[in-house]
Order: sequence, then structure tokens, then C-alpha cells
Amino acid sequence: MKTSCPLPKFDFDVITLGHGGGGLLTHRLLQNGVFDILGNDLLDQQHDGASFPLSGNVAFSTDSYVISPFIFPGGNIGELAVNGTVNDLAMCGAIPKYLSLSFIIEEGLSMSDFFQVLLSIKQAAHKAEVKIVTGDTKVVEQGKGDKLFINTSGIGIIHPGASIHHKRIKPGDQIIVSGCIATHGIAIMSVRKGLEFETTIVSDTVNLNHTITGLLDRFGNDIKFLRDPTRGGIASVLNEVAELTRLGFSIDQNNLPIMEQVEGACEMLGLDPLYVANEGIFIAIVNRNVATDFLAQLNADSNGTEAAIIGEVTLDHPGKVVMKSRIGGKRVVNFLTGDQLPRIC
Amino acid sequence: MKTSCPLPKFDFDVITLGHGGGGLLTHRLLQNGVFDILGNDLLDQQHDGASFPLSGNVAFSTDSYVISPFIFPGGNIGELAVNGTVNDLAMCGAIPKYLSLSFIIEEGLSMSDFFQVLLSIKQAAHKAEVKIVTGDTKVVEQGKGDKLFINTSGIGIIHPGASIHHKRIKPGDQIIVSGCIATHGIAIMSVRKGLEFETTIVSDTVNLNHTITGLLDRFGNDIKFLRDPTRGGIASVLNEVAELTRLGFSIDQNNLPIMEQVEGACEMLGLDPLYVANEGIFIAIVNRNVATDFLAQLNADSNGTEAAIIGEVTLDHPGKVVMKSRIGGKRVVNFLTGDQLPRIC
Repeated sequence: MKTSCPLPKFDFDVITLGHGGGGLLTHRLLQNGVFDILGNDLLDQQHDGASFPLSGNVAFSTDSYVISPFIFPGGNIGELAVNGTVNDLAMCGAIPKYLSLSFIIEEGLSMSDFFQVLLSIKQAAHKAEVKIVTGDTKVVEQGKGDKLFINTSGIGIIHPGASIHHKRIKPGDQIIVSGCIATHGIAIMSVRKGLEFETTIVSDTVNLNHTITGLLDRFGNDIKFLRDPTRGGIASVLNEVAELTRLGFSIDQNNLPIMEQVEGACEMLGLDPLYVANEGIFIAIVNRNVATDFLAQLNADSNGTEAAIIGEVTLDHPGKVVMKSRIGGKRVVNFLTGDQLPRIC
Repeated sequence: MKTSCPLPKFDFDVITLGHGGGGLLTHRLLQNGVFDILGNDLLDQQHDGASFPLSGNVAFSTDSYVISPFIFPGGNIGELAVNGTVNDLAMCGAIPKYLSLSFIIEEGLSMSDFFQVLLSIKQAAHKAEVKIVTGDTKVVEQGKGDKLFINTSGIGIIHPGASIHHKRIKPGDQIIVSGCIATHGIAIMSVRKGLEFETTIVSDTVNLNHTITGLLDRFGNDIKFLRDPTRGGIASVLNEVAELTRLGFSIDQNNLPIMEQVEGACEMLGLDPLYVANEGIFIAIVNRNVATDFLAQLNADSNGTEAAIIGEVTLDHPGKVVMKSRIGGKRVVNFLTGDQLPRIC
């Protein structure tokens, strides 16, 4: 994400091992840089952790981000790390509130890249209405990391209407995907492989929490299951839930939203879009009775304009995901074996 | 930490990129390994995050661990990652409850090393009485990481008697260190440099939460400040708090507990023990009236047998740390410049 904010001035052009040593350089980097950008009442406590009152049912989630390249079409690792954990909390039926932020930096990372990432983190946190309240910075020697890894962990409050659990899924429930699949993975792969398209394919990284809250407000416990299909794609999510529930999951390829360019790129790269990573979409499994209204609300949301009902839960083929292809044949969609797209998030 | 538990059988001797792909290999590693070892009612929810009820004032902390070597005299990165975050929460005056656990693994890490670390995590969590409730596993290519990095984030409940804040520190308050300084740093450095001593110097990594709870139970708000002096050593902690409070911090070298072998190793390596990392000790700043009783309780605890009052807070030299040396001279103890011991935690 581009920004016109001026960056703070530092004596160093790059991050050095000393910036992770806990001494003067660490202190200056935090005081004159990180805290200035991300500061808020809780982060400013500057203790080993943040303290705040909390009550209710909470969700707690963590993810480390190792995406390569760490600056990519449509974003960078900073906003990805905020949106990713915000979305994981939202998928638990929670309203995300507080994030921690931990950097593992390879010595030599340019200070301007680091601050570009920090600014993206600030903007993403602002948009998602979460506070970065505590953090950590480590630096490793050149060749012992890869520019920048980020961990975010997060705490959210479970929405009072939410009752998300795979055990609540029943035959007849409808499977909805909130947007075009495989966009993030192909945006990253196209940079890695030097592919060019008529228009640039950009990552779909976005915070989904406000969209989810709106759906939970209205549909409450008719929403049985939510999950963002990041690495491993929608095939992996559906296989996991099929295995957990021992129910069958039938999807129809005709209904799968995918951008034409992304589909073309998948063909060119020999990738099955069902397995390609996403960042800005989710899968919802909802009571059949509300599926049409749920879809209508989603389609009216900027994060769900391409949402579609892609299939349903069935008693047939328990534990398996089966897809009806465009030409009418059926095939079992298995778990991904190996890793077709390493370091996609 | 040695263990005699049998390790699960895997088709692979090492972690591959596929184990981080979100597909079948990731699924198997989690189902047949990680969940078996670390499983509990909350982790077993197997969602994008864990959900549980919580109420009160909470503390939230995060740290990434990049120590090299990741298996070292006295422990490994697994227990270090549990104890480190448990201790950070304790230093906030909290009773640690829930941890997240996130791995960044370099492709090629041996499966047996990974499971040795997992078993240490299990044991450390058990000892500290915390639950690992949510996690993440990423794998990066060879040469893009260094065997194993771990992030733990944690949630604790603030002890009802705790009132830890640097703003409460007053002149006359006593500075206490709970044990011998510089042990962890020297244990790691002696392995890196191939130093041999008569007896092996081992890391002091340990969970301090039960010790802290006992002190908070009795001394409550007479405890003004707690901090574990990890990287940067006690000099960095005292400088940070001196800068925050604009008070002076006077310490007496004669009272600083340090093992003879550790002091000898510091001389040999040209390191000042004030700046060397610790893992199993803390600095407490307490009301002068309770200092003797506080010390007595600490000395009776296995984590505080070597505890000592090392100095006091003063109106002299505001914002500075001054040490009276063994031969009676005084010197300003500055912030560490650079990083004398990279990747010590």
C-alpha cells in the first residue's frame, strides 16, 4: 500500500543485529519509530505485556507470516499479518479487539521497507478497528531469515449471536463462498514467475470482520461454520470439515466464482484453483432456510459482491468432498499433497 | 530436557515444505503429532482460534524466540518459549493462563528434534500451569530460516493484589534481583565458542509465575515494578526504568549475585555481565518497608535462593544508573550499544 507519510530519520539505512539486541538501538527504534507510528494508550504502557479489562467469551488466535516476496501486488506482509489474524478471529465468530505484533527481521532489511510495513500495519489496524497493544522485535543474521517474518496474535470477543462449531453442521446446510477464489495465490505466483497480464492481479487481502459482524447480527446461530481458506485453498478447508463432521460436501464448479485472468493463470501454471491460497474471502456453512438472504446481504457488501452458493452438505460420500465439474462429471476433491505454493502467507 | 517418551512414527525423517502447505502433510503432522502431544479441551476445538470465557483485568504478551543453537545446555527453544512468555505475563503482575504457539521451521529440520522441542513445550506448560490453546506452523526453504523459530503469545489474569507500574516507583524503593545474573547468556556463549568449564554452565530458563504469585499474595502493591532482564541484561532494564521514571538507580557491585564460573567466562569473553541475558531471574522494585521480608520469602523459594538487594532508587543522577564497584569507585552504567550477544533468546 502506498503512503505519503514521511518516514522517521534514522542513523541507519538498514536494520542491524544491534536493533534486536535489547540495548540502545532497540530502544531508539522503538521510541523514535515503532511507538510513534503504532502508539496507543495500551501500547504506550511499554511493559512486557499490555493490561486491560476484558470480559465475556473470548477468541484467541495466532499466525506467523512468512510470505515471499514480502511486498507484493496489492499489499505487503504488514497488512496481511493484521488482516489474517483479524479474519481468523472473525471466523471464530468474534469481534477482533487486540493484536500483538512480533517481528523476526533479517539483518540488512532496509529501514524504509520496514517503515512501509509499519505504516501498512497502522492503516490495516485502523480499518479493522483493532489495537496493536504489545510487541517484540528480533533480528537474525543475514542468511538465517528472509527479510521479514511477522507473527500476530489476537484477542476478540465472541459475538453474542454466534454459535460457530463444526458439530452444528447438518445435511442440507448450504456452502457459500464470499468471493472469487485463488486471487491471492495467483497474485503472488505471478510476481515470482514474472508473469504479465493485461491488468495486474492483486492480492485480495482485506479485513473481513465488519462483514462477518453484520452477518452474525442478522443470521446468528443459523451460521454454523466460518473459515477463511488461506493456504491450501477451499479444497483444504472443505476436506478438514468433511473429516471432522463425517458428512459429505458437494460443490458445483459452475457456481465457483473465479476471475477469468486468475483461471487462465492457473491453467498456465498447472495449478488447481481449489488449492490456491486466498486472503480476502471466507467459506460459510449456513442453515438452508437463510441461505438466500445470507447471500443477498453478502452481495450487498463490498467484500461479498461475487459471493455464491457453491454447494451443500449431504449424507452421501461421508467425509469426502465431491465436485460436479462444468461438463457434468463428478470427482473427489482430495486433500492437497505436498505444497504447490510455498510461503504464500 | 531429556525425555523418554516415545516419538510418533512419521513417513518423513525431516520437516519438508509440504508440512507447511496447509494440505495433507500439515494435517497429518498436526493430527498424529502436535495435537497428540499438546492436546487439551481448548486446542482440540481445532478452529482458527480458541474460544473460552474470560473476565477481569488481563495481561497480553508476545515474544518470538530465535535462539541459536536451539538446543542448548539446560534446555531448548521449546521450554524457553513457554517460560519466556509465562514470565513476561508474571512481570505484568498476571497469573498466566493461555498460550498460543507458532512455529517457523526451516525445511530439513529433523523430525526427532522437532518432537523433542514439542515434548519440552508440553512439560514446561504443565509446570507453569498454562494451556497451549491455539497455534500455527509455517515452513520456509532451506537457507531462509535457521532450523526453528517459535512465537508464543500469552494471556494472563492480573493478580488482584498487583499494582505494577513504573509510575509508582519512588526514591528509597529497594532494587532486588532474584538470582545470579548472566547465567543464560554465558551458557549459550560457551557452546557457541566451544568453551569448557569444570562443570557445565546451564541456562537458568525456568517459569517464575508461581514465585511471583506467592510474592504478590503477600506484598501486593508494595511491589512497584517487576521485569525479567532477558536480552540486554539487568543494565538495559534499569536504564529503561530510569529513563521512564527520571529517577536515579544506584546499585552496588558487591551485592550482585553471580556464579564464579560465569564471572570468569565473562572476563575471558570480554563481556560485562550487566549486559548479558538472563532467563530465570527477575528484578523487583519494592517499597523499602517490605524489602527485607520480600527478600526472605524469595530466598526460601527455589527460584530465589541467591536473591539479593542490589541497590535503591534515588533522587541523585536522575535518569541514570550508577554502580558502586567492588573497589569503591562509581561508574555510570549506560544502555548497551550494538548487540554483544545476538540471538540469545
